[in-house]
Amino acid sequence: MFQELKQAVLEANLELPVHGLVTLTWGNVSQVDRQRGVIAIKPSGVSYEHMTADDIVVVSLEDGRVIEGRLNPSSDTATHLVLYRAFPGIGGIVHTHSRNGTIWAQAGMDIPALGTTHADYFYGDIPCTRPLTEAEISTEYEVNTGNVIVELFQQRDLDPAAVPGALITGHAPFCWGKNGVDAVHNAIVLEEVAAMALSTRSLNSQIHIQQALSDKHYFRKHGANAYYGQRT
Amino acid sequence: MFQELKQAVLEANLELPVHGLVTLTWGNVSQVDRQRGVIAIKPSGVSYEHMTADDIVVVSLEDGRVIEGRLNPSSDTATHLVLYRAFPGIGGIVHTHSRNGTIWAQAGMDIPALGTTHADYFYGDIPCTRPLTEAEISTEYEVNTGNVIVELFQQRDLDPAAVPGALITGHAPFCWGKNGVDAVHNAIVLEEVAAMALSTRSLNSQIHIQQALSDKHYFRKHGANAYYGQRT
Amino acid sequence: MFQELKQAVLEANLELPVHGLVTLTWGNVSQVDRQRGVIAIKPSGVSYEHMTADDIVVVSLEDGRVIEGRLNPSSDTATHLVLYRAFPGIGGIVHTHSRNGTIWAQAGMDIPALGTTHADYFYGDIPCTRPLTEAEISTEYEVNTGNVIVELFQQRDLDPAAVPGALITGHAPFCWGKNGVDAVHNAIVLEEVAAMALSTRSLNSQIHIQQALSDKHYFRKHGANAYYGQRT
Amino acid sequence: MFQELKQAVLEANLELPVHGLVTLTWGNVSQVDRQRGVIAIKPSGVSYEHMTADDIVVVSLEDGRVIEGRLNPSSDTATHLVLYRAFPGIGGIVHTHSRNGTIWAQAGMDIPALGTTHADYFYGDIPCTRPLTEAEISTEYEVNTGNVIVELFQQRDLDPAAVPGALITGHAPFCWGKNGVDAVHNAIVLEEVAAMALSTRSLNSQIHIQQALSDKHYFRKHGANAYYGQRT
Repeated sequence: MFQELKQAVLEANLELPVHGLVTLTWGNVSQVDRQRGVIAIKPSGVSYEHMTADDIVVVSLEDGRVIEGRLNPSSDTATHLVLYRAFPGIGGIVHTHSRNGTIWAQAGMDIPALGTTHADYFYGDIPCTRPLTEAEISTEYEVNTGNVIVELFQQRDLDPAAVPGALITGHAPFCWGKNGVDAVHNAIVLEEVAAMALSTRSLNSQIHIQQALSDKHYFRKHGANAYYGQRT
Repeated sequence: MFQELKQAVLEANLELPVHGLVTLTWGNVSQVDRQRGVIAIKPSGVSYEHMTADDIVVVSLEDGRVIEGRLNPSSDTATHLVLYRAFPGIGGIVHTHSRNGTIWAQAGMDIPALGTTHADYFYGDIPCTRPLTEAEISTEYEVNTGNVIVELFQQRDLDPAAVPGALITGHAPFCWGKNGVDAVHNAIVLEEVAAMALSTRSLNSQIHIQQALSDKHYFRKHGANAYYGQRT
Repeated sequence: MFQELKQAVLEANLELPVHGLVTLTWGNVSQVDRQRGVIAIKPSGVSYEHMTADDIVVVSLEDGRVIEGRLNPSSDTATHLVLYRAFPGIGGIVHTHSRNGTIWAQAGMDIPALGTTHADYFYGDIPCTRPLTEAEISTEYEVNTGNVIVELFQQRDLDPAAVPGALITGHAPFCWGKNGVDAVHNAIVLEEVAAMALSTRSLNSQIHIQQALSDKHYFRKHGANAYYGQRT
Repeated sequence: MFQELKQAVLEANLELPVHGLVTLTWGNVSQVDRQRGVIAIKPSGVSYEHMTADDIVVVSLEDGRVIEGRLNPSSDTATHLVLYRAFPGIGGIVHTHSRNGTIWAQAGMDIPALGTTHADYFYGDIPCTRPLTEAEISTEYEVNTGNVIVELFQQRDLDPAAVPGALITGHAPFCWGKNGVDAVHNAIVLEEVAAMALSTRSLNSQIHIQQALSDKHYFRKHGANAYYGQRT
């Protein structure tokens, strides 16, 4: 019933090892079908090598119930669901422990926007959440992980379309996009700009991108006046 | 006589170059068969490329005598034997000079638990031994290398099942697990969290994971209330 | 009509992923045919995997008009054109966001000449431009990106043949050479010396290459008295 | 006439790209035949991809004259010859600009012995030469590059068999061994310990290996009482 969606989610998951974003099984991609009210997501703790579309699990967007699939969905499924509900414009989500993004998350710091590589995909710093409280960790942990991301975007008045990712303090990044593959592309970018920012700050601890340059690069690729790439 | 054990040890050793944990021949994996009182281990100074199950050496768990095999066992065999005797719950051991784990060992420092990647596999910091004395180095060096690990776990009251690895000061890591392959998986994790911790501390020299988050991640994967992965 | 030129530009572009200089589609190479008054350049936002010579776009050196090709040329085309017009001795240009070169560009710092690896290809530090003004960013941004490189070479009295590359503050490197492939070789060198300089300065923050050593290495490979490589 | 020697030198050179020690053509291996009074060495500026045994150049150990081969020998040939003459026990030499070794050379610092990985192959710190004088650079530069290494070993009373490599200030490492392949193995070790030392010192700026541990590891692999590897 959900063959096309599961195939798309499989392919997006398989991009993770190709792009060096995962160690062992640490990463999962999902994609939503809002019309049918479901998401498809990687099964929990399964290796990328032998995964097939049949292993992908389909769960209800409303209540997280498994609708199709023999395996348990990713233990991060509840986090994905919170984000899909709060950010109606997004179509795919990816969570990895990619090395450099995780370094900034562990440090509890935003990834600062330091150049046009960053500005081409993320408008402004990539934000890092506050720590969860002990209560939030002990009960409904995965739901609360999603909630602190949503809270962060509300408090800083950020647009999830312009800032397609965030860091969880002490944990790792989540990214999103139009669909699963697009979310993975944003995760590739986050990982690369995280690596660059680490060394840039070691050379020059005060540097930040000029606002005008950030605007220029973001808006030449996004929105009504974009002129990068091929028009279709 | 020990074909299955030797095959398992061969396969675990071959995972080392696949996961980038070894340079030249610097790494060895063993696995124990407690019922038959033997361990099987990589031969000393042999390359991974042409190694076959026949090259794997079987030695007595009790006295280290070679029971099967034409080659010399790893020069680290005595260390493995000390650990198998002191930690009755473990089934496999791996020693590598993987880059980032070795960096922390050379610095003589524990790898601090800074995030959930670490907490998913190691409960608390990965401890580093005290330096060996000159007497411990000059006589029974490899035995004493095992002994300082055992001493470390006793003094800090650590559970080898919850902290499946340690660093030898000035040397490199040892990891262990249910069997050889599981030990290698813990070595992959140690190497990755060692790399992440290095840069995390360069960004934020005081950071440490929240205790509640460490508990949550460790216990959602291990013990009676685990809910990560597939139930079989 | 421009088959040979387009084939050369295709091959130079395909060297970028081989040498690890690009993430996603972030890099473009061009080559000029000064007799026919055209440059050939990578199309905008197209992946390297499926690119063919037919995808390469030929544009007028004089006014940037597309002369051959169905796709949009790289959004950086205007920058390439400024450089070809200002530096009549160069035959190929490459722009990438290669990690270590970009780190120095984001820090707004020259890559200092610290060893013979650098001196073999670049005579002196690899210079970094001043920031563009808001006006330069908002109007004719890509043209002005070229202009600040030209201004930098004029103000410091640098010879583009002896310093075949520069960093754009807050952005990334541009390199050039006799043709597209030669420009890519200089980009490989820039990336490598950028990585080395980063760690060298972390060990020794004041170090710089001796002038005599820089002279020796540069002039044993370049100019009338060169004696490196094969004489043809 | 020198087919076997040239084949050995070819194979040793081809190990350089396999082990990630070279960028472009920056590396060369030679091997000596002391009975016939010749060395065979990589040609200058030729890529590893298409190199055959016929491209290897045989030159006189006594005066550097080309004895066999159509191509120019490596521009570093004179340095190799100085080392073969001064260190009669060595059989092969390699020069690379491998990243981490070059970083320490550019910093003008010895690679400190910080762990057993280092101690297994190099007895004590890997020394770095003094800078060459302007006179030494301008005349007979490559000969003087060899001379400062020899001077360094004399002044510090080092044994080239126990310390099979050195750094040239502002330049890069040279390593040597029993033959070309053995020299390359020492270059692999130098590169790895250089990388580890860089980060170890960033964690703990005062650390050094215990002398007793350095002795133990070096002498369990080398000399009369060695017990590492297979006895043949």
